[in-house]
Amino acid sequence: MSKGEETRRTILRQALELSSEVGLEGLSFGVLARRAKMSKSGLYAHFDTKEMLQCQVLDAAAARFIDVVLSPALKQPRGLPRVRTLFAQWLKWEREELAGGCPFVAAAAEFDDRPGAVRDHLAGHLLDMLSAVARAAQIAVQEGHFRADLDPEQFAYELWAVLLAYHQYQRLLDKADAGARAQAGFEGLVRAASA
Amino acid sequence: MSKGEETRRTILRQALELSSEVGLEGLSFGVLARRAKMSKSGLYAHFDTKEMLQCQVLDAAAARFIDVVLSPALKQPRGLPRVRTLFAQWLKWEREELAGGCPFVAAAAEFDDRPGAVRDHLAGHLLDMLSAVARAAQIAVQEGHFRADLDPEQFAYELWAVLLAYHQYQRLLDKADAGARAQAGFEGLVRAASA
Repeated sequence: MSKGEETRRTILRQALELSSEVGLEGLSFGVLARRAKMSKSGLYAHFDTKEMLQCQVLDAAAARFIDVVLSPALKQPRGLPRVRTLFAQWLKWEREELAGGCPFVAAAAEFDDRPGAVRDHLAGHLLDMLSAVARAAQIAVQEGHFRADLDPEQFAYELWAVLLAYHQYQRLLDKADAGARAQAGFEGLVRAASA
Repeated sequence: MSKGEETRRTILRQALELSSEVGLEGLSFGVLARRAKMSKSGLYAHFDTKEMLQCQVLDAAAARFIDVVLSPALKQPRGLPRVRTLFAQWLKWEREELAGGCPFVAAAAEFDDRPGAVRDHLAGHLLDMLSAVARAAQIAVQEGHFRADLDPEQFAYELWAVLLAYHQYQRLLDKADAGARAQAGFEGLVRAASA
């Protein structure tokens, strides 16, 4: 890896951490430069615009999501074990990976009313994540773990719903039972899908 | 109603509309003054600080939520009809009431990492909303519409989850089937609760 590429990755790592707390819009070149101990002009050498920085932060988050959530799931046997690992890792991602929780959840509320490259980029990543869930559910149908008439995209909607509520119960409402609620929600989905 | 109180309500109505699009943090006295066709000092006469304005906007949203969602539900027969109306009106609230959708969803992502009066205020309103759902589910148990061992707070968690995912499917992902997905999610919850 070139020195420039290494620096770019270090900046993106810090930008991702920062944006998980203050949102993608809160990601100013000034604050980021202080965190990364660089000059603002040093940052501009890597990212022409704030929008480009925001898109690359989302890409960095998506790459990390693949490492933390999708890859461990794909290493499990096809079907329900894979769906279970997907959910367990996703909870962990939401809880432990970044100080402010899942950056996609935070960015979604920020950008849903702001047309442009960042919103399109974010929607693309979320659609990828939802497709991965639907695919895992589809395989569970093929393996006979889930019922044949299950709608995998509906399963993905409902699993994502459980995670969104978890984010809120844990971070905003400070509910001690957030994890138990999320797990019970997931078990309900699996039960309904298996029936 | 005094002239001052009338003006305050008009301002809050416009502040609520604005904040549903740009978030509570985007609610600047400058932009709001232009919208309300007032001077900034005129606004300061009604709201000492931005934080006070934000809290009162949340109160105005909660009052409107009661009118649009809770009151119509409470006019229905106890039990499942009330739960159904609650959900149907909640979808409508999310879809039609304000340009930017449910202001609580937007504010939740903004404030979950920012301790202070606004976050506490917001959490209080959300806990009230979740309690209202749990109470409706509890009554459905008493009426024999839902099974006796249903956990009403888990039902509230899952209903809120379905609504959070609806917000995202509709506003960020532009999914044409968002409403159908939400309805199917809700029917799944009712089925599981009735079994």
